[in-house]
Amino acid sequence: MRSSNSRDLLLKPDESLDEFMGGRLRLIQSRRGYRFSIDAVLLSQFVTVKPGDRVVDLGTGCGIIGLILLLTRAVGSVFGLEIQPHLADLAVRNAILNGFQNRMRVIVGDIRHPPFTPGKIDLVVCNPPYRKGLSGRINPDSEKAIARHEIMVSLREMIRTASEVLRPKGRLAMIYPAVRLVDSLSEMRSIGLEPKRMRVVHPRMDAEAKLVLIEASLKGRGGLRLLPPLMDQGDFSIARVV
Amino acid sequence: MRSSNSRDLLLKPDESLDEFMGGRLRLIQSRRGYRFSIDAVLLSQFVTVKPGDRVVDLGTGCGIIGLILLLTRAVGSVFGLEIQPHLADLAVRNAILNGFQNRMRVIVGDIRHPPFTPGKIDLVVCNPPYRKGLSGRINPDSEKAIARHEIMVSLREMIRTASEVLRPKGRLAMIYPAVRLVDSLSEMRSIGLEPKRMRVVHPRMDAEAKLVLIEASLKGRGGLRLLPPLMDQGDFSIARVV
Repeated sequence: MRSSNSRDLLLKPDESLDEFMGGRLRLIQSRRGYRFSIDAVLLSQFVTVKPGDRVVDLGTGCGIIGLILLLTRAVGSVFGLEIQPHLADLAVRNAILNGFQNRMRVIVGDIRHPPFTPGKIDLVVCNPPYRKGLSGRINPDSEKAIARHEIMVSLREMIRTASEVLRPKGRLAMIYPAVRLVDSLSEMRSIGLEPKRMRVVHPRMDAEAKLVLIEASLKGRGGLRLLPPLMDQGDFSIARVV
Repeated sequence: MRSSNSRDLLLKPDESLDEFMGGRLRLIQSRRGYRFSIDAVLLSQFVTVKPGDRVVDLGTGCGIIGLILLLTRAVGSVFGLEIQPHLADLAVRNAILNGFQNRMRVIVGDIRHPPFTPGKIDLVVCNPPYRKGLSGRINPDSEKAIARHEIMVSLREMIRTASEVLRPKGRLAMIYPAVRLVDSLSEMRSIGLEPKRMRVVHPRMDAEAKLVLIEASLKGRGGLRLLPPLMDQGDFSIARVV
């Protein structure tokens, strides 16, 4: 019988082990299924962090956002919530692989029923699965390409859950399709999460935006800072090592 | 007794006659009071125009937006609504000065009680007087610098009036402080004006936005196009000729 650690870190046949940030971050991912995108990196860099922050990552996937925050920012601990057991298992192994098993917990559970004590979290991050079932980027012109109902339901549930687990003045940060900006801002405000910072992501300086980064504050005052535009060059280099 | 035309075009002691667009646009303005800003130019360039559009300019001031639209775009006619009689008088003289007396009408009236038949207008433009009583640009950080109540009331009234005078699928285009983006988008949607196009105006590419251009459609479908960012270099050259 193998030790727990070696079993946890074993690569399955359909998995790859990739290295990022000059080798500081190692990541097991599925070869053909869910792989993290540049969105997770943009969100990790965008979010406001205060030292010791208790962070919840809704839909943590392979754990990428929590791991980047633990590696590069002053967060205290990360709770990753993931409904798919095989992704949660990935996230657990990635936490161990990067030495964060004591500061990153992964919980298998549903965003609609968050297993956290209400009002205790400093920061909620979320990269909603708006590309699920879609190949590549969303075309803002093709309404049919976007399962609006699904997006809306998951958006509303995600925002409601964030408002429940956050302490007053706690922050929700998310990345979302630009085509749904009005939905995002309106839903946040309607539930008491006031949008405070926003950054628009353009593929090129002369192209329409595909994504927006939004940070909201629970029971925050009105007034938005609209940060300089961000170019997503898609040049986040990926060095496969296994 | 002088002829009507010469009286209308007479410059008053506190007025200047300025020339723009290589002399194509001539404009009488107050020397010390209200003078148009780059915002009016940005809005005129941003707005979607269809041939023959009937346009209402809410708070037309010296008439600058209507005049630029008549000079450079395919609009049919412009109705300028202005509550201050001396500004309305200016706008009338500017319409005559530029030969648009038959296509631009100026009406002295209150935005809250629009003197138009409901549901007949194709396009409403508005550059709200959010800088009134303020010197220079709004600082997004200083809440006190912004009379929020006044801005909100005028914003809500303006949007309501637009929704009343527009035909279904008619458009409202406005320029507004970025710090109030959530207010603008939420108010529009709540009254049935769905934001469809937006452009963020930055003083520099690496600076926070001060202004946003927004176009909404009455009873339009959800889904926003977020256009490339716009740099307001403030370099709209002003050639004073009198």
